Amino acid sequence: MGSNPIRGTKKNMNFKKTLEKLKKEIDQELDKYLAGAICDAEKQDKEMGRILRHAAKIIMASGKRIRPILMYFGYVAAGGKDRKKIIKTSVGIELIHNYLLIHDDIMDHGRTRHGIETVDAMYETMGKNIFPDCQDLKHLGNSMAILAGDLLESLGTQSIVDSGFDAKLTVKAVSALQSTIATTIVGQTQDICIENKKRVLEKEVLTMYKNKTAKYTIENPLKIGAILAGADAKFLQKISLFAIPVGMAFQIQDDILGLFETSEKMGKDAGSDVKEGKKTILVLRAMEKAGREEGKFMRNVLGNEKINLKDIKKFQNIVQKTGALEYSQNLAENLVEKGKAEIETFKINKEAKVFLLELADYMIARRV
Amino acid sequence: MGSNPIRGTKKNMNFKKTLEKLKKEIDQELDKYLAGAICDAEKQDKEMGRILRHAAKIIMASGKRIRPILMYFGYVAAGGKDRKKIIKTSVGIELIHNYLLIHDDIMDHGRTRHGIETVDAMYETMGKNIFPDCQDLKHLGNSMAILAGDLLESLGTQSIVDSGFDAKLTVKAVSALQSTIATTIVGQTQDICIENKKRVLEKEVLTMYKNKTAKYTIENPLKIGAILAGADAKFLQKISLFAIPVGMAFQIQDDILGLFETSEKMGKDAGSDVKEGKKTILVLRAMEKAGREEGKFMRNVLGNEKINLKDIKKFQNIVQKTGALEYSQNLAENLVEKGKAEIETFKINKEAKVFLLELADYMIARRV
Repeated sequence: MGSNPIRGTKKNMNFKKTLEKLKKEIDQELDKYLAGAICDAEKQDKEMGRILRHAAKIIMASGKRIRPILMYFGYVAAGGKDRKKIIKTSVGIELIHNYLLIHDDIMDHGRTRHGIETVDAMYETMGKNIFPDCQDLKHLGNSMAILAGDLLESLGTQSIVDSGFDAKLTVKAVSALQSTIATTIVGQTQDICIENKKRVLEKEVLTMYKNKTAKYTIENPLKIGAILAGADAKFLQKISLFAIPVGMAFQIQDDILGLFETSEKMGKDAGSDVKEGKKTILVLRAMEKAGREEGKFMRNVLGNEKINLKDIKKFQNIVQKTGALEYSQNLAENLVEKGKAEIETFKINKEAKVFLLELADYMIARRV
Repeated sequence: MGSNPIRGTKKNMNFKKTLEKLKKEIDQELDKYLAGAICDAEKQDKEMGRILRHAAKIIMASGKRIRPILMYFGYVAAGGKDRKKIIKTSVGIELIHNYLLIHDDIMDHGRTRHGIETVDAMYETMGKNIFPDCQDLKHLGNSMAILAGDLLESLGTQSIVDSGFDAKLTVKAVSALQSTIATTIVGQTQDICIENKKRVLEKEVLTMYKNKTAKYTIENPLKIGAILAGADAKFLQKISLFAIPVGMAFQIQDDILGLFETSEKMGKDAGSDVKEGKKTILVLRAMEKAGREEGKFMRNVLGNEKINLKDIKKFQNIVQKTGALEYSQNLAENLVEKGKAEIETFKINKEAKVFLLELADYMIARRV
């Protein structure tokens, strides 16, 4: 095994170009939308303007726009033709995503997102200048971050509601969206429970991955797009059979990257998953297979915010030599194959089919 | 002035009966809805079930259901006939209300709501039994309360989306609802800014009342109901001209009750507004008119969580003798008259007209 143990397949250039092209178009729409929303917010209240401006800075700093891109391809897969309209509408799902991220960052004590201070961290740093009389800047930051998330939820839902698609389809799409948000909240609750329990089963973690990632990141945007193109129940069911395993593979790959990839690429603090005490499939498996000494070491450093680079290296090393890395990689690969098999026999728009199959591979080949 | 300085008009018995009858019907629907939602949540996750069960306990413990009742009358005013359907749909607006209340309680350090522990307080008290390994129960409670609010937002929006009203009207109603939620968040941001600034203008507080209370509590439910009955833009505008002043009067009365009414009636801690350091119109006016000594006393106790009953009494006394109570009461009365004048010349369903005129009076006559 070389210096970087993460598996990677040869990248498909057309696929990467498609991703980049769509990301650029979505970013333009997102930027335009946020500029308008900040302007509106500032007219109403200076501080609301500041909060949204900072949230927009985080949103625009980075992000793969995977959810809007999937919404686009769900629409195309189901035969949708109004390219411009679906791209404009897909901004809504990215706003919803950032609503959930901002609230997650409060719960996970995240200090930066995409290399930018989180909303609460910004108020803790800058708050003294804005509110010299404030006695509790930590609490103020917490409040402002709750509000930032709540605002993005409203803006996101409203931009899908106001998209101008057929009203019956819009009602169906917003109902599906809100239902998925509820499931994601279940997943986040499970995540917190797992964090706060000593003994956790692999099964529990996989259920959480299904709720918090697979349904939310892959199934939901594909479904919303397909619904807006008028897809029927059978079509949506097929989409789910593809999306759930592929989405779970996406999360497992995320765990691998979260432990092994450098922080600059991920835009997160180095070893943040270990610092946060995340009990991933990777970590659970390693702790199960490790000897007593190394198992004890893992339990000790997991959740230690002050872990040093040497201990992170040691942690990585145990995950590799116990076979936990390989186990996770194989699990992800099998899930991807399962998803691909569903879509291969499915009669959908050819461009969308090619994209979804390549996307499935990308889930486990990606390095960011 | 007698032992209780709050003005009160003779209560209209028919009006009170209407309120009680509708509240009972709405409570039945709400209870049925929540029982189903808790059952669904428990199937998905034990802890999510616990969170929603506790939130439901708070929701059902008390509450005037003023927003669902107004949604009903907005619908009736605009000629809506499907009584059963609008009452069922009105549950959504009460869920949204509780979403915002739960998030407000985090920001305001609220420990009880309707006499029941808030979600975060519940986890701080009970969390040790549920998560014996948790190192920070305060943070855990904060996280669970954020999630409880987020879940109620989804459930609330979804129940309106799924109401079965005409799809075009539903899209319009949900758009209006999400737009109002965004305005309410602006109002909450202004509230936090006012709390954290030393010098605040009456004008700023009134703008906050407009955003956080008048639009949200009175205008929004009336509008949503009217939209679902097919009301046009002119109708909705007239509704706003009634709702905004009446809603501001509602908030001013709330401030008066928050300072002078006993805590059992209000379901809040005694003097909680003073403890929270709320700079209400009542308080601002009193501080402006008070002498140096008394002004200094007010500034000192405002925001003091350990204020005793004697100092609360002294605070109340200053508010009365500076004329600030009378000033606030007159302001509220004038706003109510302004709102009533709009509706008196308005051609709407008679039952709704009578109700709205009585409601306007009730805003300042109510004791809870």
